[in-house]
Amino acid sequence: MLELYHHGTSVCAAKPRLVFAEKNLPWTGHYIDILKGEQFAPEYLKLNPKHVVPTLVHDGQVIRESTLIGEYLDEVFPEPPLKPDSALDRVTMRTWTKRLDEEIHPLAAGALTFAISHRHAVIANGPAVVEFYVNQGTPADRERRRRRLEGGLDDPEAQRALRLFDRFLADLDAQLATTPWLAGDRFSLAEIGVIPYVNRLDMLQLSGLWTAARPHLTAWWARVKARPSFAPAMLHFVPPELTALMTAKGQEAWPKVEAILHAQA
Amino acid sequence: MLELYHHGTSVCAAKPRLVFAEKNLPWTGHYIDILKGEQFAPEYLKLNPKHVVPTLVHDGQVIRESTLIGEYLDEVFPEPPLKPDSALDRVTMRTWTKRLDEEIHPLAAGALTFAISHRHAVIANGPAVVEFYVNQGTPADRERRRRRLEGGLDDPEAQRALRLFDRFLADLDAQLATTPWLAGDRFSLAEIGVIPYVNRLDMLQLSGLWTAARPHLTAWWARVKARPSFAPAMLHFVPPELTALMTAKGQEAWPKVEAILHAQA
Repeated sequence: MLELYHHGTSVCAAKPRLVFAEKNLPWTGHYIDILKGEQFAPEYLKLNPKHVVPTLVHDGQVIRESTLIGEYLDEVFPEPPLKPDSALDRVTMRTWTKRLDEEIHPLAAGALTFAISHRHAVIANGPAVVEFYVNQGTPADRERRRRRLEGGLDDPEAQRALRLFDRFLADLDAQLATTPWLAGDRFSLAEIGVIPYVNRLDMLQLSGLWTAARPHLTAWWARVKARPSFAPAMLHFVPPELTALMTAKGQEAWPKVEAILHAQA
Repeated sequence: MLELYHHGTSVCAAKPRLVFAEKNLPWTGHYIDILKGEQFAPEYLKLNPKHVVPTLVHDGQVIRESTLIGEYLDEVFPEPPLKPDSALDRVTMRTWTKRLDEEIHPLAAGALTFAISHRHAVIANGPAVVEFYVNQGTPADRERRRRRLEGGLDDPEAQRALRLFDRFLADLDAQLATTPWLAGDRFSLAEIGVIPYVNRLDMLQLSGLWTAARPHLTAWWARVKARPSFAPAMLHFVPPELTALMTAKGQEAWPKVEAILHAQA
């Protein structure tokens, strides 16, 4: 039995859902509402001491870290394969997933989403929540949290995140100019890793980052969204109020996003 | 043909050398003296735009990132295998290599080596070199560089690095209490990844971090050092003057290392 502890807004939790859908694997979900802090519940901490989603439990065995969950599921359920046949292409595949884990996720994804959208949900909770949110950690942490909350896209950290994402999209487009999928001829774990991040930008109404001048990425994204795996894995679990928030605040942010990237060029 | 661009002090460059030795693969080395800045030479930047070692070139194909090089070599030269037979144990293996890449390498390895040993090599070059070294980057970078250079183990960043390493060693010992090797019954890519970091601590004369109270790690380390792969891969290429510096400065640092970890306990 495959059990997944997951949440609708987590980029990482979407990856195993995509694998399940691509391989037609039946699974049972346990929804951990990270916006309500359920990831800190003692029972969940036993499964995942870092208090993050997802966690996979396969026949009682616990597997953590979405990138490793993808490799595991493809080894245990090899059909249809989500790895390229050639060892060199598998290096390409893992170069993408490694970059997501080391650069895009820690430095860019959360900071950009927060700057554009989610900080407004904190602010909407009123000044007491804002002060509680800001006053955590060391003095340096507090200053950083206040700058992120109040600054939005004016915070230099958010602008760095945006530029990092923009370079990443440029590299995706360059790869897709030479191969139909990110690691060669086959939809692979590189797609499983990248899709949730591109989808995040798409939900933040930032698809202009590729539709304007990145035709290979644009065509790839249309093919990705047309796959039967996309809607059930990527859209079904997102809380509607967050979708609405990301849509509204993303549209508001777009002119500033363009201005920041234009200033850099 | 297997060609490796590498250097004797790089922890990451040691990993493919260990794989070559474990699999008895003939290889040709190209020594990139990172202490002389040879990684910035235009020809090398073409192979490795991030200007780091190692780079593997296999029959003309370029493969970067030591963790991915390990996976690649084990796929292309499967005997003797450096991955466990069970998919769950392979998750354990990759959990170790992922932690090295995301936590130990960026946050701990360089900072600790510099604080204990290598900063003395910069200082020995005289005040002009020191000022050049310190005055790079943004004002925040400069302040951090000065603090690292002058503070040594008094720099809070170096102390965090030490505590991170100490927790890592505790986790290695806990794993080795339950399995003979880090990912189960077989010497694997988890060992290939971890050995260069433990060796760095050993060369810095910090083996007291495990010999005193971590018997499983101590026994594992003795078995690792007894393997025929160890000396040619781990010791042969280290510049003798750096070995001497790490030995002398590490011995000097040991009482302070003990005091920092004792204060935390």
